[in-house]
Amino acid sequence: MKLTILGCHSATPRWHAHPTAQVLEVQGHLFLIDCGEGTQVQLRRFKLKFSRIKHIFISHLHGDHFYGLIGLISTFRLLGREADMHIYGPEGIKEAITLQLKLGKSWTNFNLFFHELSSNEPQLIFEDSKVSVTTIPLNHRVYTNGFLIQEKPGERKLNIDAAVKAKVDKSYFQKLKQGFNVENRDGTEIENSQVTLDPDPPRSYAYCSDTVYAPQIIPQIKHVTALYHESTFLKMHQHLCEPTKHSTAAEAASIAKQAEVGTLILGHYSGRYGDLELFRSEAQEIFTAVELAEDGKEFFF
Amino acid sequence: MKLTILGCHSATPRWHAHPTAQVLEVQGHLFLIDCGEGTQVQLRRFKLKFSRIKHIFISHLHGDHFYGLIGLISTFRLLGREADMHIYGPEGIKEAITLQLKLGKSWTNFNLFFHELSSNEPQLIFEDSKVSVTTIPLNHRVYTNGFLIQEKPGERKLNIDAAVKAKVDKSYFQKLKQGFNVENRDGTEIENSQVTLDPDPPRSYAYCSDTVYAPQIIPQIKHVTALYHESTFLKMHQHLCEPTKHSTAAEAASIAKQAEVGTLILGHYSGRYGDLELFRSEAQEIFTAVELAEDGKEFFF
Repeated sequence: MKLTILGCHSATPRWHAHPTAQVLEVQGHLFLIDCGEGTQVQLRRFKLKFSRIKHIFISHLHGDHFYGLIGLISTFRLLGREADMHIYGPEGIKEAITLQLKLGKSWTNFNLFFHELSSNEPQLIFEDSKVSVTTIPLNHRVYTNGFLIQEKPGERKLNIDAAVKAKVDKSYFQKLKQGFNVENRDGTEIENSQVTLDPDPPRSYAYCSDTVYAPQIIPQIKHVTALYHESTFLKMHQHLCEPTKHSTAAEAASIAKQAEVGTLILGHYSGRYGDLELFRSEAQEIFTAVELAEDGKEFFF
Repeated sequence: MKLTILGCHSATPRWHAHPTAQVLEVQGHLFLIDCGEGTQVQLRRFKLKFSRIKHIFISHLHGDHFYGLIGLISTFRLLGREADMHIYGPEGIKEAITLQLKLGKSWTNFNLFFHELSSNEPQLIFEDSKVSVTTIPLNHRVYTNGFLIQEKPGERKLNIDAAVKAKVDKSYFQKLKQGFNVENRDGTEIENSQVTLDPDPPRSYAYCSDTVYAPQIIPQIKHVTALYHESTFLKMHQHLCEPTKHSTAAEAASIAKQAEVGTLILGHYSGRYGDLELFRSEAQEIFTAVELAEDGKEFFF
C-alpha cells in the first residue's frame, strides 16, 4: 500500500498547511479519503492521477474534511471524465453536492453514485476480489466514520525452480498458487508447500479521524499494518478533547498500543503548536513505531 | 480605491493559478468580490484583514467564483467572528450555504444576511454615505451579475490658509466643506470657491465576469475609473465564446473603448494560453490603457 498525505492539518486551511485529504493506493485502486478545501490542487501538486480515483470516502461533514469535494467533482466534469464515481459519506452528502451542481447548471457527464452512511455499526461498504473497505464508527461532534481498508490474502507464490525440478507441468501452476497439491509428470503427488512460498501477508490500513479517544474501536483495528489516528492536541490541552471530541497524541498512541498495530501515523494537528515533533515524542512515551503525517509525505507499507 | 486580485484564472484551481476572487478597498470597506475555492488561503497569503470583510458579492454560482465561500464562512466562525456578514448573490446561495452549515452542525455565531438576487435590471444593493454598489446584469450560462462600485462626490476640501486669511471662523468650516458661502468675522460674505478646493473626483469600479460580449452594459459603466472585464479567450478561439458565454480580450477592449473607461483590467484567463501578454497585446490593438490581472497583484486607482 502507498499512502500519500495531501493534507493533515485541522480546521482552517493555510498556504502551507492543508486540511485533511489522503490517497491510498492499494491493489490497483486510488482511494481518496476525505477531501478538505484545496484537495484538487494538492492532487495536481503531488502528481496523483486524478482520473484513477473511482472511490471517495468522506469521514464526516465538517468543512476541513469535505469542502473540497464539490470542486473536485466539478473539475472531473471539466476534464471530461466518463468513468463512474462512487462517494461514501454521511447522510446529507448527496443533497449538499447535487444542490451545488444544480445551482451551477453543472450536472456531471459521468455517473455519480452516493452511498450514504448512517449506521453506528461497522459496515462493509466496498469489496472486490482483492480488497475490502469497512467503516469504523467514531465518536465526534457529528456523525463520523473511520475506514478500515484490508487486502485479502493473496495466492501462494510459485517457486518456479522447485516446481520445474519436481517435474510439475506448467498447466498445474495455477492450482499450485491456489494451494492445491498436484501430480507431476511421473504421476507422483507433489506437496504444495515443496514448490510454493507463503503469499505476502495481507496488509491493512485504518483511518481514524476525527474522534475523541474511542477504545471501542480497538478490536476492529487489531493488528492493522498502519493506523492513521488523529492527534489534534497534546496532553497539555487534554481538557479540550472532550468538548471538541478530539484526541491527544498520547491517546492515539494508547489506541495503537492496545491494538498492536504495525505503525501509528499521527495527523490532524491543531495549528497552535509550532513543532510537530512534540506530537511524536508524546506518542513515543507509549508506543514506539510513530510516524508524523506531513502534507505531501508518502508512506509505503 | 485599492483592488487586490486573489485569483484571476478560469475553471479549475491550480497551485499557482487561483480561481476568481478579489478585494476592493474603498472608503473604509473591504468588499470581497467572488470567492473561488482557496480564497481564504489567498486572503491570508496576501495579508488582507479577514475581519474587516463585511460584504461579499458573488457574481454567479459556478464553482470557480463560489466554492470558497462556505470555507471562508466556516473559518470566520472558528475565528470567533461576531460582526454581521452580508452576502449578495444569485437565488439559491442561501440554501447552498446554510445546508452545509447545518450538515456540519456549524451554525455561525455571527449574523449572516443573504441578499438573493434575481432581477435582470441593475439594482442598487448596497449604499452608505460614501459609496454605492449596483448590479450589472451580464449574459452567461447561468444567472450572473457584475458589480458597479461608485464613490459618492466627497466634500469640498478646505484651503485652511485661505480661510484663515479671509477671517472665517472655525465654526463655519463644515459649511464651507458642504459648498456654502459664509460670513467672515467682519460680516463680509466669503465666496465658497475662494477658500475651498474641488473634491477628488469620485472613483468607480466595474467588475464584469463572467459574460459573453454584452454591449448593453456600456451605458451603465460609462467613464468608470477602472473596468475589470473577463477575457477568457483570445480571438483565435472566438468560436468558443458563444457556446461557453465568455469573451475575448478584443471584446473586453471593445467594451472598454466604447465605455471610455479609465483603465481596463483583464482576467479570467483560460488555462490553455502560456503567455498572458498575448491578452494585453490583443486588447491594446483596440484600447490602450490595459492592465493584466495576476494573482496577488494590487491596483490603485
